[in-house]
Amino acid sequence: MAETAAPKIVATGDLGVVVERATGSLLIIDQSELGAIARVEGLGDLSHASVVFSPDQRFAYVFGRDGGLTKVDITQKSIAHRIVQGGNAIGGAISDDGRLVAVSNYEPGGVRVFDADTLELVADFPTGSKTIGLVDAPGRQFVFSLWDAGETWRVDLSGTTPDITKVENVGINPYDALITADGRRYIVGLFGEDGLAAFDLWSEPLRPVRVLDGYGRGETPLPVYKMPHLEGWALAGDRFALPAVGRHEVLWIDAQSLEEVGRTKTHGQPIFAVARPDGRHVWVNYAHPRNDTVEVIDTRSGEVIRTLTPGPAVLHMEFTPRGHQLWLSVRDENRVEIYDTQTFEKIGAFEADTPSGIFFTARAHRSGL
Amino acid sequence: MAETAAPKIVATGDLGVVVERATGSLLIIDQSELGAIARVEGLGDLSHASVVFSPDQRFAYVFGRDGGLTKVDITQKSIAHRIVQGGNAIGGAISDDGRLVAVSNYEPGGVRVFDADTLELVADFPTGSKTIGLVDAPGRQFVFSLWDAGETWRVDLSGTTPDITKVENVGINPYDALITADGRRYIVGLFGEDGLAAFDLWSEPLRPVRVLDGYGRGETPLPVYKMPHLEGWALAGDRFALPAVGRHEVLWIDAQSLEEVGRTKTHGQPIFAVARPDGRHVWVNYAHPRNDTVEVIDTRSGEVIRTLTPGPAVLHMEFTPRGHQLWLSVRDENRVEIYDTQTFEKIGAFEADTPSGIFFTARAHRSGL
Repeated sequence: MAETAAPKIVATGDLGVVVERATGSLLIIDQSELGAIARVEGLGDLSHASVVFSPDQRFAYVFGRDGGLTKVDITQKSIAHRIVQGGNAIGGAISDDGRLVAVSNYEPGGVRVFDADTLELVADFPTGSKTIGLVDAPGRQFVFSLWDAGETWRVDLSGTTPDITKVENVGINPYDALITADGRRYIVGLFGEDGLAAFDLWSEPLRPVRVLDGYGRGETPLPVYKMPHLEGWALAGDRFALPAVGRHEVLWIDAQSLEEVGRTKTHGQPIFAVARPDGRHVWVNYAHPRNDTVEVIDTRSGEVIRTLTPGPAVLHMEFTPRGHQLWLSVRDENRVEIYDTQTFEKIGAFEADTPSGIFFTARAHRSGL
Repeated sequence: MAETAAPKIVATGDLGVVVERATGSLLIIDQSELGAIARVEGLGDLSHASVVFSPDQRFAYVFGRDGGLTKVDITQKSIAHRIVQGGNAIGGAISDDGRLVAVSNYEPGGVRVFDADTLELVADFPTGSKTIGLVDAPGRQFVFSLWDAGETWRVDLSGTTPDITKVENVGINPYDALITADGRRYIVGLFGEDGLAAFDLWSEPLRPVRVLDGYGRGETPLPVYKMPHLEGWALAGDRFALPAVGRHEVLWIDAQSLEEVGRTKTHGQPIFAVARPDGRHVWVNYAHPRNDTVEVIDTRSGEVIRTLTPGPAVLHMEFTPRGHQLWLSVRDENRVEIYDTQTFEKIGAFEADTPSGIFFTARAHRSGL
């Protein structure tokens, strides 16, 4: 890297990136500027791309659909390193100490773990299956599930050799999973089945419990346009807000018992239900063809208190870490918009090329994102 | 600031500061280095000092006991600006948008609010009372309480003029307060009284509810060496861990009902009970003369699972944001120690001059700290 390119940015706490999916590029964004400050190109196929950050919030690790793993230096606004580690990948994670980056692969199926500094392969966990729902857990652990084999694996990389725990018969086809923000519960979505499989990672031996029997195909009266993302169940006070599958509803789930305690009728099939960090409101976006709209639900009443129509294909929403703003991508109008979350006024907007995921560096300090 | 002092640090996510109370200086610390990288001097009286950070994690605002408010540039390792804004101050806060810094004063009694960029006075709220328990709340709000008047005030600075809500008869002598991490509950400690006053900031009108009747003087069998800090009740799963007053106990409080659900016998009178970010363990330090010891309590069992003796006067403990390490200050041996929170092994130590508070920049992204 050129020494002459002396960085003007000397603090990285309020930066972030926007994935430009069609062009394989990344915008570096700055909350102080309410906009983008640079574009980094050459990241390959970024459809369904996700991002994690190094603990110092200098590097973004971008997981591309094509198996690309790109380490972007957001202070230098350039690619620090890039490898193609698999043929078809879906998501990644970073260990709690920031030393290990893991990638979940469809082809060849499994999880590969890389040194966060060098991107050298540290460990390889072939599964013989498409691998989904990869998350990091406290203590240098990663947890993931096997689409074809119906298993969940936990790998512990805190010792000199990896310690692998495999749990069979989790379901027929796990399609996605999440870990709660405290790193305690790992919850697996089961394609075409009723209910979800929930693990308490604090309890030994690892054992899935079926929860939310009403959740899934059994009660689906509408064609499912897109399976909702499980990543990041919105924890709002003592309840999770959960997108219903194939229904125009958000479900409210008791955070302790994981039982349903209520429902909110929504504009469309929810994709993401995201809680403002204080848990008072949940913002929801929707599947095609109703994806021009965002609704805000009050957590206490369960009622929709505001409807916004940013434009066609609102793909992703990201709160600033203390929740005073929400940034969202309007893919089909090539724009990112910024809202004041107290007044719901639009306070900024900037151009982006087919924007999808928006990720702030504050994610570096949270588990399981 | 000299342009020639080109910063080598270009990422601020894993930095922090240690307050050196006797010398009025600040160490800048780096998690990647497991140590200190610079010292900044000239901050006045730092006994009982606290620190908040700007959203970009470039600036630390240090609140000194002598009324000094010092803005330290942690990338330049120097003081960016310093004012003496009062005669005797206790604590500060930063608004959720990072634009306003507030200071709580004993003399003259009240709260003063400053522009975070310039440190110019923006608003002044004289109270005619020593003012304590100042916290930030979502929506550009600050909440604080009045020692002499027994009141709690909320000031909302989101509009063109401040909106002040005053609640009387909260208690006789509020001595400290906290806000829960979600910004919803403001809980006031009442000196010499039984119970605490709890506000639900989501409910109008603001109204205190007395909780934890058994908490306070009524059951104190031992001399109280030091009132425990209320700041930062440890939320561990669905319970708070709370230092008992004047007893060798940690209390467990249901996070929703605020009722006591259990107690753990401890080595001494607890000062801080700090939850690892995943909530699985709570680390506790103690008042003089038993302040050489730290105990680790398992959240599920409520049992002490580990006892450490770092040395005389363990004053403060700070987890890395994802909880893989804990840093603590050993004041009377002029040392900061670093522990692996999975193995409890000491993995680092460095010299510091009478270290007290340790603050990582990740605090910039949380409310109410």
